[in-house]
Formats: sequence, structure tokens, C-alpha cells
Amino acid sequence: MVASEPWYLPVGDEVQVFEAAWRARLPVLLKGPTGCGKTRFIEHMAWRLSGQPLVTVACHEDLTANDLVGRYLLSADSTVWTDGPLTRAVRTGAICYLDEVVEARKDTTVVIHPLTDHRRVLPIEKTGELLEAHPDFLLVISYNPGYQSSLKDLKPSTRQRFVSLEFHYPAVEVEATIVAHESGVDAAMAHRLATIGDKVRALREHGLADGVSTRLLVYTGQLIAGGIAPRRACDIAITHAISDEADVQQAVADIVDVLLP
Amino acid sequence: MVASEPWYLPVGDEVQVFEAAWRARLPVLLKGPTGCGKTRFIEHMAWRLSGQPLVTVACHEDLTANDLVGRYLLSADSTVWTDGPLTRAVRTGAICYLDEVVEARKDTTVVIHPLTDHRRVLPIEKTGELLEAHPDFLLVISYNPGYQSSLKDLKPSTRQRFVSLEFHYPAVEVEATIVAHESGVDAAMAHRLATIGDKVRALREHGLADGVSTRLLVYTGQLIAGGIAPRRACDIAITHAISDEADVQQAVADIVDVLLP
Amino acid sequence: MVASEPWYLPVGDEVQVFEAAWRARLPVLLKGPTGCGKTRFIEHMAWRLSGQPLVTVACHEDLTANDLVGRYLLSADSTVWTDGPLTRAVRTGAICYLDEVVEARKDTTVVIHPLTDHRRVLPIEKTGELLEAHPDFLLVISYNPGYQSSLKDLKPSTRQRFVSLEFHYPAVEVEATIVAHESGVDAAMAHRLATIGDKVRALREHGLADGVSTRLLVYTGQLIAGGIAPRRACDIAITHAISDEADVQQAVADIVDVLLP
Amino acid sequence: MVASEPWYLPVGDEVQVFEAAWRARLPVLLKGPTGCGKTRFIEHMAWRLSGQPLVTVACHEDLTANDLVGRYLLSADSTVWTDGPLTRAVRTGAICYLDEVVEARKDTTVVIHPLTDHRRVLPIEKTGELLEAHPDFLLVISYNPGYQSSLKDLKPSTRQRFVSLEFHYPAVEVEATIVAHESGVDAAMAHRLATIGDKVRALREHGLADGVSTRLLVYTGQLIAGGIAPRRACDIAITHAISDEADVQQAVADIVDVLLP
Amino acid sequence: MVASEPWYLPVGDEVQVFEAAWRARLPVLLKGPTGCGKTRFIEHMAWRLSGQPLVTVACHEDLTANDLVGRYLLSADSTVWTDGPLTRAVRTGAICYLDEVVEARKDTTVVIHPLTDHRRVLPIEKTGELLEAHPDFLLVISYNPGYQSSLKDLKPSTRQRFVSLEFHYPAVEVEATIVAHESGVDAAMAHRLATIGDKVRALREHGLADGVSTRLLVYTGQLIAGGIAPRRACDIAITHAISDEADVQQAVADIVDVLLP
Amino acid sequence: MVASEPWYLPVGDEVQVFEAAWRARLPVLLKGPTGCGKTRFIEHMAWRLSGQPLVTVACHEDLTANDLVGRYLLSADSTVWTDGPLTRAVRTGAICYLDEVVEARKDTTVVIHPLTDHRRVLPIEKTGELLEAHPDFLLVISYNPGYQSSLKDLKPSTRQRFVSLEFHYPAVEVEATIVAHESGVDAAMAHRLATIGDKVRALREHGLADGVSTRLLVYTGQLIAGGIAPRRACDIAITHAISDEADVQQAVADIVDVLLP
Repeated sequence: MVASEPWYLPVGDEVQVFEAAWRARLPVLLKGPTGCGKTRFIEHMAWRLSGQPLVTVACHEDLTANDLVGRYLLSADSTVWTDGPLTRAVRTGAICYLDEVVEARKDTTVVIHPLTDHRRVLPIEKTGELLEAHPDFLLVISYNPGYQSSLKDLKPSTRQRFVSLEFHYPAVEVEATIVAHESGVDAAMAHRLATIGDKVRALREHGLADGVSTRLLVYTGQLIAGGIAPRRACDIAITHAISDEADVQQAVADIVDVLLP
Repeated sequence: MVASEPWYLPVGDEVQVFEAAWRARLPVLLKGPTGCGKTRFIEHMAWRLSGQPLVTVACHEDLTANDLVGRYLLSADSTVWTDGPLTRAVRTGAICYLDEVVEARKDTTVVIHPLTDHRRVLPIEKTGELLEAHPDFLLVISYNPGYQSSLKDLKPSTRQRFVSLEFHYPAVEVEATIVAHESGVDAAMAHRLATIGDKVRALREHGLADGVSTRLLVYTGQLIAGGIAPRRACDIAITHAISDEADVQQAVADIVDVLLP
Repeated sequence: MVASEPWYLPVGDEVQVFEAAWRARLPVLLKGPTGCGKTRFIEHMAWRLSGQPLVTVACHEDLTANDLVGRYLLSADSTVWTDGPLTRAVRTGAICYLDEVVEARKDTTVVIHPLTDHRRVLPIEKTGELLEAHPDFLLVISYNPGYQSSLKDLKPSTRQRFVSLEFHYPAVEVEATIVAHESGVDAAMAHRLATIGDKVRALREHGLADGVSTRLLVYTGQLIAGGIAPRRACDIAITHAISDEADVQQAVADIVDVLLP
Repeated sequence: MVASEPWYLPVGDEVQVFEAAWRARLPVLLKGPTGCGKTRFIEHMAWRLSGQPLVTVACHEDLTANDLVGRYLLSADSTVWTDGPLTRAVRTGAICYLDEVVEARKDTTVVIHPLTDHRRVLPIEKTGELLEAHPDFLLVISYNPGYQSSLKDLKPSTRQRFVSLEFHYPAVEVEATIVAHESGVDAAMAHRLATIGDKVRALREHGLADGVSTRLLVYTGQLIAGGIAPRRACDIAITHAISDEADVQQAVADIVDVLLP
Repeated sequence: MVASEPWYLPVGDEVQVFEAAWRARLPVLLKGPTGCGKTRFIEHMAWRLSGQPLVTVACHEDLTANDLVGRYLLSADSTVWTDGPLTRAVRTGAICYLDEVVEARKDTTVVIHPLTDHRRVLPIEKTGELLEAHPDFLLVISYNPGYQSSLKDLKPSTRQRFVSLEFHYPAVEVEATIVAHESGVDAAMAHRLATIGDKVRALREHGLADGVSTRLLVYTGQLIAGGIAPRRACDIAITHAISDEADVQQAVADIVDVLLP
Repeated sequence: MVASEPWYLPVGDEVQVFEAAWRARLPVLLKGPTGCGKTRFIEHMAWRLSGQPLVTVACHEDLTANDLVGRYLLSADSTVWTDGPLTRAVRTGAICYLDEVVEARKDTTVVIHPLTDHRRVLPIEKTGELLEAHPDFLLVISYNPGYQSSLKDLKPSTRQRFVSLEFHYPAVEVEATIVAHESGVDAAMAHRLATIGDKVRALREHGLADGVSTRLLVYTGQLIAGGIAPRRACDIAITHAISDEADVQQAVADIVDVLLP
């Protein structure tokens, strides 16, 4: 359960759409770039839905269906079944958020299929249990379309089980509010940093694979608030943090030079 | 066992053909695209055949023969054999439905071979048992010819053990009936959504790998019934749900614009 | 042991040649396409040789030498050796039939080498036993030269340990007899189905990787005997059962149209 | 805990920047070539921050999340949970230094994500514990941009969680001080060796993948102090230590010839 | 121990050379094509050297160092060390024959290195034992240079630890003697079969990867002695046993036609 | 511990250099071709350094960090930690010689890093112990630059932790002394064999990947001393022992013909 209201600034109708999906218990896919606030959004929504419990699983290349569903553990003189995070969410009626689900091993997709159609069940092969989902259970997954290879794409038979909410980096004014709120720099500096973020993301077409995340702009603000000179702070938390390529670093440094003269 | 009659609208002679295959105990292969109703069809048939029990296994890249047949589990002071889902079906005379069987590891095909010729036996290597199939056992598998790579094809020696039933998306009138029934929108809106589905599937030749499933059309209806504006609902549950490509999304949005002016 | 005489219609001198190989205890390789009757032939021969016991192992990509030879299983308070199917055959003097042996993992070939030269022994590494084959033990393997890739070829050092019996699909008259016997259709319909089989196999040079098996012709007959219209039965059990390619399906349908007007 | 002050000669503002990051508890990435002093810097900083405990993990291709987080170990009659090095650092408030983190298996990145955003938690899947980081916990990682292949790059979603400190080899005067201090050769010889280092690194564009580390210059000094002739010492600890290529070795030997005539 | 004298017809000075290597305890490599008598030669030599015990291990892609050296096995209430075949040979002074050693996993080569230089020891990592070889221990390995890929070559650091004895198929007169002795056909037929073998091996340059082994010629003789017509016996035990290629089979059949008119 | 003085004939200043490295406890890398005496050199040095104990580990593709460091073994009713060879050497102050270290799995390199810089510690992850090296511990590794692929190169971050001693085959006079001493042939024959070795190594540029090792020349001498004719002995222990290529074998045979007329 999310204890206190997570601070979240909506950028469109995402709150209303999510609530409609929740009411119909439609599985939701959050699409968007790194560090744009998907994790915080889902925490905010869990809090907003009368304190709906939230189970978050960060997926990775070695995550198996067993990691999600559960396994037998050896105790003193027998083996004891232990629910995994997905099973706990299905049983208790939590929102289960699988972050970057395409990273996981393929057997995980099979586990979520019967939870995302009219059946709403979780077959637990190891125990033979066919667990019916709690009425409040909802599955939410995220992925970043920016760096999916064809090997790591969601299969259509998985993808077509989710409604899809797109996320983007916030507009400059919104992001400046966030940076000021989170880092403690004043409004003017926060606006400059948000503008730097906006310009750096525009470099994307010029060979920068990923823009700069809101998180890094907040870091920059924190370093400035902590006494590091603004341009050196940008150097550390933006320029060298996002790339090792000398020409990309130069292009970013040029933007910083203009905006923090 | 399927508890209540699953709602299913036949699109051809598939019910009669399946019943003939069942009477001769011929293994059946269901071919068709994602979300066209294969799973629901088999649930319907199990119910229709006087409540024949049904065992469904969603296959995946890590599914092994042992997952299907069974394994020894460690208990307090010995190891105990536990039947897997296929063995349970063979022993009790259920229909065993292996969904997307080509995804499974190759040792699974070997397990189903002696069950699908004149022998009708399941050799359980680990226990040495040669289990004769219950007279009511039937094996049903599915696969989606649309996205099989050559690596994931059914071997002819497997394929030629099954009669083959093809499934397609339902015609517009049929699909409109389904969307209205499942989502709660009125007949006019259901017809428009079914028409959108039909037009989007026609884009397939223009670079859209998969069409839109009936399931997503139902989701769209559910969002509309839940208060989301129809065009925004299409955006969330169709346009962005089926593709990340900007030009495909535009083509889909154009269809929506025409049909939901 | 094969309980009752398996029905088998010889197509050449294969029965005499197998008996000669058996008398000299020469290992035998059965070569031929899918569904042409190799499994039934070996069952027939086992029965014919005064009820020689038969152990059949369907090989697959994950089959290891341990699966064939045996392993230690954990019981209440110790580990107990359990013979695998090959070891049981070697010890008791059965025919051991390894179906599609090239599919198995490579350590299996090493296990069969000392059983297939003058030594006729099975070294069981795990127990240290050097098991001399029972005088009646015979090793038989099969493979389908039609779809072996170079990765899945028999190594010459394995291959040159076997005499080689080639199998082909039966001639039309023979196959019609089989179809009538197994499916219950009358002689005229069985002949038409056998002729369809013959014509479809002739398509092979026109892009059909595999012909149609005798088994599928029998399925077609069973569907017809069960009340499905003959052309629809061919559709289900032949045309769509052997290919997903529209042009191949059309070519097959054309043959059916001519022969079942 | 680092027992005595590790000798470290700053080359820029890295000490001040690190202290600012530490005060804001911002995760830090140390970038730089092999042997330039990153490990010693982090030891120095741990000592400097009032004796902050330090946990160092050298990452490698087989390092898994379990190696970092912990595992159940089998004792006399049950299994006992044992914290891994990362969990110990999170629990007790140490600096955790993951050296060459991109070498580790991908599941490790997932473990560090929730520790490097506003959540500052470590979910321990195996025990179900959600461990909140001690207020003094800080995560520091290093990597060498010089020899990362695209396969071994930090994912942007990981990278954009860290501020980034770049390290380079020290200037000649600084390095001469280090060499003299560590090896015992006199200032003149130390200066010659540092100059050799500087010239050898300039060869990098001429096909030498990596320069020579400060460590090897110290080794050379130690061999000279131990009685080996200076040119032979360079031969052993520089020329043949950094390359097997005859032309690179010749180019290095030419530099040595000029500077140690 | 080899119980009775294995029948072996020397083709050169291989017996004298092996005896000299044995007296100096030099490791021996037997090179030669499949089925030319290497296994029988080593059995013959073991018998000849006053009944020296012989341990034969057929190597394969999954054979590990542990398979050769030994492992701990779980018994009632502890684990018990069990020597592998190599360790038994080293301890008791047997000849250890590793057939097709390049097939084994690479950790096996490391195990044989200290046994094949001046050290003559076997380090048993698992028990910490450094086992000195019995004075009568000798290591013999074989490989077939005909079908080694570069991936499966002996490393020079392994290869240069062995003296090397080359084997070829026997000359026609010698092979005829063998065929007559082993199959029971008369001298004239044996001579014809040996001539067929000789001609078929000459096809090697014309696309036949491997010739025909002496073993297959003996099989042919056995089938003829068992009542199969000579040309049909050649068909079964030579033509189809060595190739699936129609043109190679035709070339072989042409040779048979000429020699068995 | 090396029991008796290993016979070793120095070819340069390698003994003095190793002693200097030992006094400064600098890690040492021995580079050189197969069979040139690296193993014997390190045994000799261990003996020479007042009987310093020596732990030798032959590395291979499956050698893991756990094999070096140690593992828990299951005993009657608990698990007991057992030091691996590296840990034994670190604890007791032995020279640890990792032969062909690049063959080992990559996690091993991580284990040796903290042992080869100013820290001189071995972190034992499994027990949580941070073992400080005994003052007399020294790490020595070897590798053969002749056949390293780029996949099997030492990483610079590993390589730059070692001083580097190059080994070559001995000069003819030195090698003749060795051959005479080890094989028992007279000085004239030993000189001829050493000259053959020298000429064969000169073929290297003409397509012979590796020269002939001193060990094989000694084998040749032993066969001659055992009664095999000199040219036949060269055939067995040189010509066929080093290559399967007919033209390389011919070139080597030509050298033998000239020198052993």
C-alpha cells in the first residue's frame, strides 16, 4: 500500500482514462521514455483509488514465471509453497505493476494471458491451483517503445490484451514546477533547467538515442542547491550522464552555455 | 470442467466438424489469428459435449515435457510423483488444449506423438508407466500461422497427426453482436466499432502485421460505456494498442475519424 | 511386448531383410518420410519374431544419454538406481526402437556405439556397471532423410554401424486397402482418397515440402464415415492440415475437385 | 570500513563534487580508464566521510542479482537467509561500490533501480522483504567507456539514475609524485617513468587500445628499486605488459629508448 | 581386462611402435577414419601387454571432467566420493582409452594435461587429492582427422603431449581376410566385397565424405551368409547405409553392378 | 611443495627478474608458446625460493570462481565450507599458478583483481570473509599469445596488473642438452633432433600454426632410445604429432630427411 500521497502533476487525461480502465478492470499498458514518471503515476493512481495496494515488479532478462508466481522453498523437513508477487496481488486484489515487461523471459507472458481475458484466472502449475483473481486485481505493464529491438517486442497476442496509455516528457512549464518542487532551486533556475531539458531532447534526431530524464534535471538542481556551480552541475548530471560520445557531449554543452551564460 | 455455458457465436460449420472429430477421437488443430475466439470455442465445445472436462495449457518457450507430464516433488522424507496437466487429462478422459503449442520446447512434441496415432498412449519416462489414454481423452492444439517463423513451425511429423480447423475474425454483423453483448454499448455504436475493426484489418496488407482483435473492440466499447469519449476510447484501446509506428497509427486514426465523426 | 498382431501390409522384401538382420543381430536403420508406417512396421516385426518385447523411445532435442540409460532417484533416505528404457531393453533382450534418433542430444550416440559393434556392451558410467547385451537385444533407429539439416545429420561413425532399410509411401492399391481397413469407408472412396494422396505427393517438386501421410488419408476417411461431406473432409484433414500457404492449398484443392467431383 | 587514510592525490574537483552528491544522496557513476585510481578514490572518500563503511563488489559476467542481494543457505536442518553485499550495505548504511557494473548479468540492474530513485528501497523477492535504505546508504558504480561494446552498454533507464564523474590519468607531475611515493625510486626516475606513461598513452591513436596504467609505472619503479636495470624493467612492466603486437611493442620501446638512454 | 585375445590383423609396425611408446610410458594418439579398427587395436594391445587392464570411454559433447574424474554421490546420510573411469585407470595402472576425445567438453583436456607430462599426476579438485599415476598407467586417445571442424580441433597444447599413430583402411587382401573371418562368406565373395570397399573409398574425391567402413563390409557378408541376395545385401548394408544422396548412391550401385554381376 | 629440485636450464635473466618480482610481490604473467617450459620454470622457482609452496591450477572453459575460491559441500547433516586451491594459497602463503588463465570463465578474473593491487585481499562472497593475503602469497598466470582469439584475450584491466615475462623455445645448443638429459640419446642425436626442432619452427611462417615443442623432441629421443628407427620415430612423434595437413607433413618430413639421412 502506498502510505502517503505521491506528488504527481498530470499532463493530460491520464488520470481519468486510468480510472475508467480500472472500473472496467481492463489491463493497462503504460508506454513512454525512461524517467518520464510512469512509476510515480502508478503509485499516485494506487493511492488515489482509495488506497488500492500496489505490487511493483521490475522485470529483467532472467525473470521467470516462477519468480512471479511462486515456488516451493525447503524448510526443516518439507517443502513449503511461497506465493510470488503476482500471486499475492491476484489473491489479495492489488494492482500488479510489471515494469518493462518485455525484458522478462517469455514464460511470463503465458502467465499473464489467462489473467487478461474473460477468464481472469492464474493457473499455478506447481500446486495445481487455478486461482480466480480477486475482483479488485488489475494488471498494469509498462514498456519503452524507444528502445525495443524486434527480439524484445511484445507479441501481438500479448499486446492486444491491454489498453494503452502514452506518456511523454512534460512540457517546459510543468517540468520547471517539478524541478523546483523536488530540488529546491528557485523558479528561474528551474525554468532554465527545464528549457535545457527541452533543447537536449530536441537533439534526439541528431544522434542522441535518449533525451535527458526529468530525474537528471532534478539531480542537477540538487547539486546546484548543494553548492556546485550551475554549469559544473550540468556537466556532471546532464552532459556526461547521458552520453560518452564527444560530439554529443559538445552539442549538449553548447545548449548549457547558451542557457546558463 | 466448464461450469456455465460459455457464450459463443458460430461463424461456420466448426461446431459440427469438431463433433465429428470428437466422435472419431481425431486430434484437432485450431488455426487462426490472435483474439479471434479459439479459446472460447474450445470452452464452448467442452461444455457442449455433455460437460467434457477441459484442461488448458498456454505454451511458452520454456515449457518442457516434464511440465506437461509431471515430476517428482520432494516431500517430508521421500519424493512423490505428481501428474502434470497432460497426464491428468489422459488419465481422466479430458480434452487437453495446448494453446500455441509451437512455442513450447521441442521435447513436448515427442510426448504428444504416441497420443496422436493408433497407440493413444503416454509413456511416462520418469515412472516407467505406459499410460493408455482414457477413451474420452482428446488432444487439441492451436497455432497462429500469421506469425510463425520457420524456426517455430510445426514439424510435418507432428502436424500430420491433426485435422485442421481454420478460424478467422467474425463478419461485421456477427462481431457487432459480440461487441454489444460484451461491452454494453448500443447496437449502433457496436456496429461502428465492428466496422472500424473490419477496416483496420484491411490495412494488414499496408504494413500492419496484425489486425485488431475482437477483444480490443470490446475494450473500446467498455471504455465508451464507462464515460470516455468514443474517439479517445479508440485512441487508447485500438490505435495505440496495436502499434507504435506513427504512420500505422495515423492510418488507423483516419479510419476512426471517418467512422466516428 | 506387442499384445496382438499389428495389422501391416508389406510393400517389398522389408520383412525378409529385417529377419536376416535380426538373425545376425545387425543394428537396423529405418529411413523414410513421416507417417509411412515405420513405427507400425517395427511393432509388426516384434510381434512376428515370436513376440519379441519392444521398447520404443521417441527422441527429441532434450533427450540425453541419462534419459536412455537411467539415473539415481532420491527415495526416503537414499538414492536408488533406476534403469532407463535402453538399459531395460539391453538387460532383458528386447528390441529397442529409437525413433528419430538424430533429434536427440549428442551424448546419446556415444551410448549406442559400444552396443552396435563386436562389443555389444552398455557401459553405465554412473554405477560403473559394464552391461553385456542379452543375446536377443537389437537396436533399431529411424530417421527421415527428407528434413535433416546438416546440423542434424547422423555422424558417419554412428551411421556406419547400421544396415539401412528404406521406406516409401505405399502404392495406390495398397494404400486404398489400408484406408478402407482403418477408416470404414467403402473401396471406391478409399481408392479415390489414395489417388488424392498419390497426386498430392507428386506436388512435392512444386514446393510442397512434405506429401500427405497415410494417416491423414485415414483421418479423411474417418470424417467421411462420420458424416462430414467428402470435399469438406479433405479440406480439414488434407488441404489445411498439410500447409498454410495459399497457393499450395489451392493446388491441393484442385486435385480434390477433380477426384471428388 | 576503511581502516587508515588511503593515500590519494586529487586531480580536480572530484572530492567536492562527490561530497555534494553524497549530501543529496545522489547515486554516482565513476567513468574512466583502467588503473587510473577509481577504486582508490572511493576508498579515500569513504574514509573522508567520517569513516563511512564501504562495500566493494567487482562485477563479472556471471554475477547475478542473488549474488548481490543474498540467498538461502542450507544448514543442519533448515535453510537460513544470508544477506548479500548489497543488502548489507543497504541495511547498515554503507557506500556500496559496484566496480564495472556493466559486466554483471542484467538482473542486477533491476535490483539497483528502486534504490536509485525516490523510493530508495530494495525489494528482496526471496523473503518478501521490502527493505528501506538506511539514510546513509549510497550507491556508486564505475565503468570504463573505452572498452564497452554495444552489448555491454548501460541501458539509458539505468544510466539516467546517476550523476557522472569522469576520471583521466593524472598529469605528469602528479603521476611522478605517485610513482615516487609508491615505488621508492627517486624523483628524477619517477619523472622519467611518468613521462614514458604520458608518451605511451599518446600512442593510443596509433593502434594501442589502452594506455599504460599508473599501476604499471609503479611496478616499473619497484623493479628498478629492486635492482633490475631501468630499460629491462620497462621491458617487463610496460612494453610486454600492455601488448603482444610486435609493432606496438617497438613503438613503446622507442619511447623508452629516448627517455632512458 | 580383456578376457580373450581379440582377433587383430596388423597392417604395419603399429604393434611395435605402440610397445615402444608403452615402455617409455608416452601418451599415444590414434588417428584414423571411422570403422578402421582403432578400438579393436587398443583391445588387442591391452591383451598383448600381459593382460594390461583397459578402461574405454567414448567421449561426447556433454562429457565433462567430472564424468572422467568422479563425483560425490548422495547416500543415506552423507555424500560418498566415487572415482570416475579415468581416476580408476590412474589409480590401478590401466590403459585409459578416450575415444574421439575432441568431442568432449573442454575441461576434460585440462584434466589430462598433468597426466601427460613429467608430472604424471591427476589433481582431483573436489577431494583435494593429488593422485600420482600408477607406473603402468597409460593414456591413449583417438580422433578422426577426416571430420574435425576447426571448432573441434585438438589444441596444440594438448596435441603436442602425444605421439601419433596413423591408421588407414586395410589393403584389399587384408580386408578380404577380415571379411571372410568375421562374416562367414567364402574367400571369393570376401575378396569381391573388399574390392567394392576399395572402389567406394576411391569415390571420396567425388563427393563422398566418408568411405565405407570394414564393419559395413562384414555386415554385407553376414546378410549374404544369412540368405539375402548379394546385390540386395550391398544395397542395404553399403549403398543406402553410407549416403542419402541419389547420385552418390548411383555411383556406389554402379561399382556393385560391375563387381557382383 | 616441490619435493626435489626440478631440472631447469635458464635461457636468459628470467630467474633474476622473477626473484625481483617476488621480492616486491608483483604479480607475474608468463607468456610463451606451448611446451616451452613455463610450468617447469615455475616449479623450479618455487623450489629455489627456499621451498615456497606451489599451487597449480590448469584453467579451462568451465572453470569458475567457485572452483578457485571454494564451496559448501554437503556432509551428514550440514554444509561445510571447503577452501578452493586459490584460497588455500592465499591463506598459507603459496605461489598460486593459474595456467592458461584466459581459458577460465570470466568471473575468475574478478576474483584475482583485489589480490593483484594494493589491497591484496580475497573477498569470499559465500562466507562473507575478506581474506587478507599471507605476506608470501604471489599470483602467477600464464598465457600463450600465439593462439588467443579476440574472444579469449586478457582484458586490459586484468592484464595491467601483472609484470610480463616472455618465454621462447630454447636455442639449439640448450635444447640439445635438454633432449639428451631427458631421453637418453647421445649428444650427436640430441643435437640433430634439436636442429630438426629449430627448422620445423622456422616453417611457422609457411602455414604451420605452432612449432614443435621441446617435449615432442624428447619423446622422439625416447622412442629412438627404445629401439624405433630414428626416421620412424620422427614420423610418429613429430611429423604426424603436429599436423594433419599433408603439405605441412611433407615439409616436416623433408627436414627430417636432410638431417637424419
